[in-house]
Amino acid sequence: MLTKSSIKYIQSLQHKKFRDELGEFIAEGPKIVNELLEQQIFECKCIYAVKEWIAEYSYLLQNRTEIIEEIEFFELEKIANYSTPNQVIGLFKKKKPIVTFDWSTSCTVLLEDIQDPGNLGTIIRSADWFGIKNIVCSKNTVDIYNPKVVQSTMASLGRINVIYENLKEWLSDKKEIVPVYAAVLDGEPLHEIKTVKASVLMIGNEGNGLSDELIQMSSVKITIPKIGLAESLNAAVATAIILYELQK
Amino acid sequence: MLTKSSIKYIQSLQHKKFRDELGEFIAEGPKIVNELLEQQIFECKCIYAVKEWIAEYSYLLQNRTEIIEEIEFFELEKIANYSTPNQVIGLFKKKKPIVTFDWSTSCTVLLEDIQDPGNLGTIIRSADWFGIKNIVCSKNTVDIYNPKVVQSTMASLGRINVIYENLKEWLSDKKEIVPVYAAVLDGEPLHEIKTVKASVLMIGNEGNGLSDELIQMSSVKITIPKIGLAESLNAAVATAIILYELQK
Repeated sequence: MLTKSSIKYIQSLQHKKFRDELGEFIAEGPKIVNELLEQQIFECKCIYAVKEWIAEYSYLLQNRTEIIEEIEFFELEKIANYSTPNQVIGLFKKKKPIVTFDWSTSCTVLLEDIQDPGNLGTIIRSADWFGIKNIVCSKNTVDIYNPKVVQSTMASLGRINVIYENLKEWLSDKKEIVPVYAAVLDGEPLHEIKTVKASVLMIGNEGNGLSDELIQMSSVKITIPKIGLAESLNAAVATAIILYELQK
Repeated sequence: MLTKSSIKYIQSLQHKKFRDELGEFIAEGPKIVNELLEQQIFECKCIYAVKEWIAEYSYLLQNRTEIIEEIEFFELEKIANYSTPNQVIGLFKKKKPIVTFDWSTSCTVLLEDIQDPGNLGTIIRSADWFGIKNIVCSKNTVDIYNPKVVQSTMASLGRINVIYENLKEWLSDKKEIVPVYAAVLDGEPLHEIKTVKASVLMIGNEGNGLSDELIQMSSVKITIPKIGLAESLNAAVATAIILYELQK
């Protein structure tokens, strides 16, 4: 049975302010929760689950059954972010990423003011597919612990280091170390330039693209060639296409 | 002033059943509505807009001002799909796509049971970027006139023909005409095979991938090489990467 104060606590984690204060975040549904439990990267504080989940998956908690709270489906509905909640919600402790940059072989993705949680989650998932380790976000980029981001990472969250920085400062010396690619609409065709994996790839905001300030700090402006008439590509799609090309 | 019956009518268009019955769909926000008005592909039946939009954009209706209904922001909130509604909602008439297949130069995208409206919208937008004209969907794929699909197409909707077919029947003779690529997790590495643009590209459901039945009807199974640990790529991302490679 969920208490009123538990409901309030869990609901508060929908908001960045409280996630920051409490140092926790929520994940919904067996797909994400189970994988986060298996990965053991984020400490699990509490599991709210219906009895079907408990019967099938409580072994994932490795004898820490004291943190499972069995709830009814109608209670799950109260704390879920989604209109069709799915068996389980987990409370996990946020973790400060320990970032080491490898400038010899790896690409670092830099995101300027990505606003859509689904886009950030999908970028994290694609980064994980292509073996990227680090993503550097502007301070105005959506929070990685936003429940919708967590959901769309499909559990890649724990494998990618995401840090929030002042991008101008962070970028200041990078061009001297590796090529800095700026994804823009008027750059060189992606497949015509000799790209290297050890690089920084800059992706801009969904509506406005990269700021002029950051573009000026790039080594090469690159563009995914357009054949049809769409005004632009989705930011997560553009990121994935360029990562695919860089990793080849 | 919005009448109760108008509100009910507009709200009913959130559901496929009523969109099919009434032959109409809704688009929200100046970005999509304005572009659909400019394209003139879909006939506009009615515009519900706040006075700011009317002052700035009513010229887009080309003297058909009788179809504009000025509403207050609180009324917009009642009919909008989004929690932060944006100035305008347009009612447009659905259109039966006239599809001609060009088997000499063009790629046709085939989608099996794509469920997420954002994914279908993003696939349509990417298809429009890469000059694709036709998308063939299984009958269980989400409806293109779903408001969230319309939104995420970013107005590419009118430029792409999307039809819903029995895929097995539709596909039966295609392998004899063009290569049929199946996007799977255990195929040949995408960049290692000599792909051609004139082809069919098959993309499967988000959770289950392509059905065995369809895979058996393909010419080549292709995979986007994985370097990291993510279990899979988002379906819209995978589609876009393969389209990028096919169009090169």
